[in-house]
Amino acid sequence: MNYYGNSVNNLIQHFARLPGIGGKSAQRLAFHVINMPEDEAKAFAQSILNAKQEVRFCAKCCNLTDNELCDICSNPSRDSSTVMVVESPRDMAAYEKTGEYKGLYHILHGAMSPMRDIGPEDIKIKELLARINDDIKEVILATNPTVEGEATAVYISRLLKPMGIVVSRIAHGVPMGSDIEFVDQITLSRALEGRRQI
Amino acid sequence: MNYYGNSVNNLIQHFARLPGIGGKSAQRLAFHVINMPEDEAKAFAQSILNAKQEVRFCAKCCNLTDNELCDICSNPSRDSSTVMVVESPRDMAAYEKTGEYKGLYHILHGAMSPMRDIGPEDIKIKELLARINDDIKEVILATNPTVEGEATAVYISRLLKPMGIVVSRIAHGVPMGSDIEFVDQITLSRALEGRRQI
Repeated sequence: MNYYGNSVNNLIQHFARLPGIGGKSAQRLAFHVINMPEDEAKAFAQSILNAKQEVRFCAKCCNLTDNELCDICSNPSRDSSTVMVVESPRDMAAYEKTGEYKGLYHILHGAMSPMRDIGPEDIKIKELLARINDDIKEVILATNPTVEGEATAVYISRLLKPMGIVVSRIAHGVPMGSDIEFVDQITLSRALEGRRQI
Repeated sequence: MNYYGNSVNNLIQHFARLPGIGGKSAQRLAFHVINMPEDEAKAFAQSILNAKQEVRFCAKCCNLTDNELCDICSNPSRDSSTVMVVESPRDMAAYEKTGEYKGLYHILHGAMSPMRDIGPEDIKIKELLARINDDIKEVILATNPTVEGEATAVYISRLLKPMGIVVSRIAHGVPMGSDIEFVDQITLSRALEGRRQI
């Protein structure tokens, strides 16, 4: 239905194509943009173009960056002997927010999934193998605890172990602040399996 | 926190400024845009610029349009003797979706609100008075059933009645499909007040 003219409808349709934005939200967002000051709307449009044009993969860890190396890889105070392998830049950001990890990352940009026809060559595994050198002592596999994430972790560990690198997997168990009564059975079994002496 | 470089962060911040979009959603949307095909991202940016540059108020009803008159005002099959006054283009679209109303609209772009310092001169009331002519037999006030919408309706009706025009207000009552048990008291009183013989 074309109630507002083509320009407005076009904008609504673009918003409606974004993930998690339904028809009513798309309308609300479009009207917000139309009521924005002109320079703010221009800056918004420019930020979309910039993000497409300027963003590239970090030459080392495949994080998104505007430069040759991302801020983490180019930070000399990070511990370059440890590499944490994650599926997405957002997973990396989640670990960065903990402030606990001082090593480097490697971002796979996905996980192996035969169902969705994603094989090892479709994610950044060869880039990971290419950066393995004598400096790297440990690779921590922090892919998601899903079928795809687990399979990817196993696949990578089989490639790295023969190279004499310590390969570890993040712990799975009962999340902090949760109630054991409501935790699913697989997580409970994993928590039991991964128990540690105190 | 700058994990992904300036271009990505800039885009995330622009999304996060939109209404109803939190930090995590803004991140998800930004990553979606980064993974879009380049021409789709360009079209999205262009649609924002177009919406700001091309959209104007319909010279007659103040609806948003790309042309001098909106599609409804320029449609000769609409009944130009009836004008429905609504607060926003979205309210107009909601009535259009019913398919029941064949007259014209007038969009106020807001409602009078002393609390938010919005007076009669800040919404499109003078544009409504300017378009009143002998053709117009009835003005239907379909502002929202809120304090602001009611006040605006009363204000407009006082201006129009001396001009000899039939002024009506949409009915308020129990919404279809609802359960009377859970309907608020003000709505129930209005439903009783507005009862009709069957």
